[in-house]
Amino acid sequence: MSTQSHLRVGMVGYAFMGAAHSQAWRTVNRVFDLPLHVRMTAVCGRDEANVAAAAARLGWQEHTTDWRSLVTRDDIDLIDVCTPGDSHAEIAIAALAAGKHVLCEKPLANTIAEAREMAAAAVRAEANGVRSMCGFNYRRVPAVTLMRRMVADGRIGEIRHIRAVYLQDWITDPQFPLVWRLQKDKAGSGALGDIGAHIIDLTQFVTGQHIAGVTALTETFVKERPLPQTSSGLSAAAGDDNGGTAPTGPVTVDDAALFLARLDGGAIATYEATRFATGRKNGLRVEINGSRGSVAFDFERMNELEFYDATEPSDEQGFTRILVTEPDHPYLSAWWPPGHGIGYEHAFTHQARDLVEAIATGGAPTPSFTDALQVQLVLDAVIRSAEHGSGWTDVEPILAEVAA
Amino acid sequence: MSTQSHLRVGMVGYAFMGAAHSQAWRTVNRVFDLPLHVRMTAVCGRDEANVAAAAARLGWQEHTTDWRSLVTRDDIDLIDVCTPGDSHAEIAIAALAAGKHVLCEKPLANTIAEAREMAAAAVRAEANGVRSMCGFNYRRVPAVTLMRRMVADGRIGEIRHIRAVYLQDWITDPQFPLVWRLQKDKAGSGALGDIGAHIIDLTQFVTGQHIAGVTALTETFVKERPLPQTSSGLSAAAGDDNGGTAPTGPVTVDDAALFLARLDGGAIATYEATRFATGRKNGLRVEINGSRGSVAFDFERMNELEFYDATEPSDEQGFTRILVTEPDHPYLSAWWPPGHGIGYEHAFTHQARDLVEAIATGGAPTPSFTDALQVQLVLDAVIRSAEHGSGWTDVEPILAEVAA
Amino acid sequence: MSTQSHLRVGMVGYAFMGAAHSQAWRTVNRVFDLPLHVRMTAVCGRDEANVAAAAARLGWQEHTTDWRSLVTRDDIDLIDVCTPGDSHAEIAIAALAAGKHVLCEKPLANTIAEAREMAAAAVRAEANGVRSMCGFNYRRVPAVTLMRRMVADGRIGEIRHIRAVYLQDWITDPQFPLVWRLQKDKAGSGALGDIGAHIIDLTQFVTGQHIAGVTALTETFVKERPLPQTSSGLSAAAGDDNGGTAPTGPVTVDDAALFLARLDGGAIATYEATRFATGRKNGLRVEINGSRGSVAFDFERMNELEFYDATEPSDEQGFTRILVTEPDHPYLSAWWPPGHGIGYEHAFTHQARDLVEAIATGGAPTPSFTDALQVQLVLDAVIRSAEHGSGWTDVEPILAEVAA
Amino acid sequence: MSTQSHLRVGMVGYAFMGAAHSQAWRTVNRVFDLPLHVRMTAVCGRDEANVAAAAARLGWQEHTTDWRSLVTRDDIDLIDVCTPGDSHAEIAIAALAAGKHVLCEKPLANTIAEAREMAAAAVRAEANGVRSMCGFNYRRVPAVTLMRRMVADGRIGEIRHIRAVYLQDWITDPQFPLVWRLQKDKAGSGALGDIGAHIIDLTQFVTGQHIAGVTALTETFVKERPLPQTSSGLSAAAGDDNGGTAPTGPVTVDDAALFLARLDGGAIATYEATRFATGRKNGLRVEINGSRGSVAFDFERMNELEFYDATEPSDEQGFTRILVTEPDHPYLSAWWPPGHGIGYEHAFTHQARDLVEAIATGGAPTPSFTDALQVQLVLDAVIRSAEHGSGWTDVEPILAEVAA
Repeated sequence: MSTQSHLRVGMVGYAFMGAAHSQAWRTVNRVFDLPLHVRMTAVCGRDEANVAAAAARLGWQEHTTDWRSLVTRDDIDLIDVCTPGDSHAEIAIAALAAGKHVLCEKPLANTIAEAREMAAAAVRAEANGVRSMCGFNYRRVPAVTLMRRMVADGRIGEIRHIRAVYLQDWITDPQFPLVWRLQKDKAGSGALGDIGAHIIDLTQFVTGQHIAGVTALTETFVKERPLPQTSSGLSAAAGDDNGGTAPTGPVTVDDAALFLARLDGGAIATYEATRFATGRKNGLRVEINGSRGSVAFDFERMNELEFYDATEPSDEQGFTRILVTEPDHPYLSAWWPPGHGIGYEHAFTHQARDLVEAIATGGAPTPSFTDALQVQLVLDAVIRSAEHGSGWTDVEPILAEVAA
Repeated sequence: MSTQSHLRVGMVGYAFMGAAHSQAWRTVNRVFDLPLHVRMTAVCGRDEANVAAAAARLGWQEHTTDWRSLVTRDDIDLIDVCTPGDSHAEIAIAALAAGKHVLCEKPLANTIAEAREMAAAAVRAEANGVRSMCGFNYRRVPAVTLMRRMVADGRIGEIRHIRAVYLQDWITDPQFPLVWRLQKDKAGSGALGDIGAHIIDLTQFVTGQHIAGVTALTETFVKERPLPQTSSGLSAAAGDDNGGTAPTGPVTVDDAALFLARLDGGAIATYEATRFATGRKNGLRVEINGSRGSVAFDFERMNELEFYDATEPSDEQGFTRILVTEPDHPYLSAWWPPGHGIGYEHAFTHQARDLVEAIATGGAPTPSFTDALQVQLVLDAVIRSAEHGSGWTDVEPILAEVAA
Repeated sequence: MSTQSHLRVGMVGYAFMGAAHSQAWRTVNRVFDLPLHVRMTAVCGRDEANVAAAAARLGWQEHTTDWRSLVTRDDIDLIDVCTPGDSHAEIAIAALAAGKHVLCEKPLANTIAEAREMAAAAVRAEANGVRSMCGFNYRRVPAVTLMRRMVADGRIGEIRHIRAVYLQDWITDPQFPLVWRLQKDKAGSGALGDIGAHIIDLTQFVTGQHIAGVTALTETFVKERPLPQTSSGLSAAAGDDNGGTAPTGPVTVDDAALFLARLDGGAIATYEATRFATGRKNGLRVEINGSRGSVAFDFERMNELEFYDATEPSDEQGFTRILVTEPDHPYLSAWWPPGHGIGYEHAFTHQARDLVEAIATGGAPTPSFTDALQVQLVLDAVIRSAEHGSGWTDVEPILAEVAA
Repeated sequence: MSTQSHLRVGMVGYAFMGAAHSQAWRTVNRVFDLPLHVRMTAVCGRDEANVAAAAARLGWQEHTTDWRSLVTRDDIDLIDVCTPGDSHAEIAIAALAAGKHVLCEKPLANTIAEAREMAAAAVRAEANGVRSMCGFNYRRVPAVTLMRRMVADGRIGEIRHIRAVYLQDWITDPQFPLVWRLQKDKAGSGALGDIGAHIIDLTQFVTGQHIAGVTALTETFVKERPLPQTSSGLSAAAGDDNGGTAPTGPVTVDDAALFLARLDGGAIATYEATRFATGRKNGLRVEINGSRGSVAFDFERMNELEFYDATEPSDEQGFTRILVTEPDHPYLSAWWPPGHGIGYEHAFTHQARDLVEAIATGGAPTPSFTDALQVQLVLDAVIRSAEHGSGWTDVEPILAEVAA
């Protein structure tokens, strides 16, 4: 599909996620030896002036406002979907139909129905050698990848406990405006889908177990907010500074979502996603306890992994702070010397690396759309439980035609 | 009731808790200026030789095997109940009836019925100037007391989130024997009542809010264990070392209990108590997020409190690690210079201090038996939810006759 | 020397150190099984009323204002010297001459001459079965004792680096008064002897190496301070609150002392002792790097030891935070369950334990007066280097008659 | 000098530092709004094949093996010197003479004489609008820049103490080969110039004080090492694996350098640079104590700054862990949302940003060559003290003709 060993990328959306993805596309061949060379062919957005400026700044050769034509261009091999969740399905399915590889940001879709269609489309495309991947970037933080490797190698034994939180605080101020991430029709859900989805995927990825059922509660602390003048991603200015008279609108998503879970391998778990944890900025924290040891991770110290080895002599046991910057740690041989940490954006570079390699070698990149659908099914079970008195709610199975 | 400004104490039980309480009674007048001087009059236990040895070691003037006579002796002012939960009600009620002040270890009782009787007895005795207190010692860790003070002073504003875990790992080994703490008839419940009760009490104490309802799940990972030869408190040797042939018995309590909660002041919460968190030894951790700030505590670093002040300039905000060893911190003016930390046992000394002072001044010591009953009602709601598909379960109200 | 298996103690001085030692004498038999039972026979101080109050509060059977008679009483087996350094030599030597065991607080003496006399007296007394020990309490913090054990066991290999600081901040306020610890005639030196001595002893103890030579600088940041009305230990009120008019006096000791050192086993080291490290309350921190690993300790987290094992697989290496609360850690089997930490005072109890056991069994307690003299010789070399342009200065050898 | 608002860069050297600089040049215009657009015109190295490969990978338009022609090309505006220290002077002086701006990696030169010549050349060039800067990248770690801002704003008051270490462990293995960094003729010195220079510059930058005098000691623990087959930067394979028979050579630089210092503003300091601190990978740690507060930084947690404010209420004081990822923190508004940390490489991007901006606006970029010369003079004083019995050694003044 690519010509002359190039992988020609077209990206839709250029806000926070678009900037992070652009950085990855620019960097991946500078750091990793790969069989394909990425070409940043075109970026697409709705506003002509803005997308032109973004193209110049982020390093795209062309820009366009028409995603429908972008996804069918001959000189594009891969479509990278970085828009809000309400447009993922339409764009991704069209791109797959046009034979383009697709990288789609998470959450995969705003509804289960859409997610099922996308997963089915991806399975069909796969038969034609067209690859798809969902952008759960945290899987490629080296400490997380290492955590998975250690768990898979049996270093912590049989898994008993998972406790996962994703804590942010950017909307604690009631005057923070009603941006698209606070509107159900655009975002699907609130903290649950935005950040809760990450800890669901991450913990399932690390443990190799899937959530089978949940009991949940959700809360919206601030139910009405000022309308924004502009809205782009995580930041926005409220529409009015003169206090009191600004028009407001209802917050239609959750501010926080909490749930307990049982996983299919026997582990039990607590999950919490919130944007009201004052002082926690990007507090993605996961601890997993097993019969032989434990691992713990905190994204605010993303270059570290804590590991407890219960097989060590009892007077020397303790949590070891592994500085995940050694050449034999995942992805790290391509970067700096030990102790010279990397940042948030690098996980996107690693994601690009693995996707490029999978495309070049005919492998199946992960997480697949089916993996992402399964995360959506967990989100759905959480919502259903919260809406029905927190009763125990099984996660729906992936339909046979999709999983196949 | 006391003569010559003495407070004469009789203690029932002398294992782990008895040792901790003895240390407190020995020390309290050495450190604090108090209107009453504690006399360690007698200790009581079932085994004559063992209790005699304990009396000698722990510093009690006499010993006895008959708690019924102990609680009616004229030369005893206060009964300190340190036995397993199944005997709390009988001893405490008898002591109160005999006009003795009572300090009773937590959990207050093994059943709601017993706890209600105890609370009612305490209310009746209170009318006669007889005081009672339940031993939730962690309230008197200075960092916890400080946390309550700061929350009460409005330093974190309106409370949104509580996340509380109590993590231990002492029974992760399936060969660890079936001690009394793993038997429902003796202990009432497992991790839930033993350590979950602590985080319920502590978070309610700190926030001033009560848990209104819960959804819960519990788990017993290791369902059968070797019978112990001896069983005392936290440690025990399994009955047989030659493997395989040791007689075993069923574990009848939870190894872990997880629940979500809503509090009556609007906060939402996650709670977890487990004895299977490999590597966590006494991991009582609480974080509370409010509209103006947050506080966080970890007992494994008990001399520290983390505080986030969202009203500071935005470029200087962060979690402040307060070393809770200053003279103006709770209880600390009596101890060592700043930075010279204290240990686990000191919370018991502080508990003894506050109880002695309340008795001397005619105050009402806290937590009262009614407070402890309320914790029992939360435990009960957790168990009922877990037994009924994790459905939302309201905490039963305290009956009017008790709360009065 | 003791009768009926008792060890009868007479203590001189009852301020901060006296309170810490009293606590140890009160507690040691309650926690440890020992062949001798401590009897707190008498405490001695200059002010009749104050010492009487101290005796009552701290638990001494009698009090006296005459240390000379105390040290010769028949019913005293051991003299515990807790006075300022200027009186150590006279009291300790008299007690040894009277055949009493002696525990003497650090620093051993204010001058090398006195320290040499004391060490010689201790050596002579030892020949008669009379024991002596200097109170470097930090050796008996379990994490420090464990550190020594691990180093001695070769867990970190050949030692290359020591970096040791002891950071406090209690005199950063220029209005803090001129207490005895800031006067050379009473205290000998400032931060150097008070806290620098601790890190010298601790690092030599842990590594088994001795400091051979140093280059040093010292500084007195605040050269004049208000005279105190009262002065006892670490706290004092300045003599006048109305500002400006309070009489002042010169600070005659160092506020901070810094030195580099070479040890006789090949290690090189940095040392710093200061009372001006704003925010550090009792920041005794030591890190030791060896060819096979490293250990690090911070007293403000005294229940923890960090250990790096360079022989582990390279992708799992890191500093392990050992929670030093396990039964197989030094002294810990006598205390609480894992994770239930201990405090500052416990090191004194451990010191008392080891001293009592040495006396009972005829062993030689450590650190001996000769060990303490060697620390004094290091302090002396530091002072000489600082006074002579920081030139390299060898530590004087212990004279043969003392070391023998 | 640049045409059409471009800044055309030629880089000499392409190993570790060259890769870091290339990343910065590639990225700076993608993240920051700048008046000049960087063009990566050519990279230069000695080996044709290697430099060609580096050009392709790192994104340079051309490559060359002739630095002399590079520095005089008309289509080059700036020369970036990333070679070992022994060639800095020749290249930088030639470039300045040719009217090119120069960015030169630290240490500025291997000898004082060279450094003086470079500084003088930079001063002369400055008169013609030609800019020069030395690459002390750590100044542009946001937490470090914030630290400087807070100190300059008086947040910690009068500075009393500096303690600075730079700890690495990459040559603890005696079989690690004799790479160029261990050879005096190439590297000038060992740990001292390589990493000690960083903490000298950083602490002077943050405090605004200069080191006036020192007392020092240095050590080479492993005096003979196997000769390398290849040598590039931090990593290398020893020449022979069959043990014992590999040819070896003498290590001619320090493995560790320790010194005490007095600064011209009254602060006293300890410094340590070593490559033998087992377990410390890039442990650049600085703590500064002042009369009103303290700041502390550890590069291994580069997104954090600890700040102690002694003016807060005494019961709320403590070290605040500022997560330096807020938009109002230095450089951060250009990057990711709060809590989404950055990595080692970003400081180079910030360095490039500030240099580009200075060139565009006619400002004087810092640190200047004169600033870097002053660091060299401190290194020189350290070496002289260490070679002369650690005696106190004043730092030589910068000559008037240079400083002007």
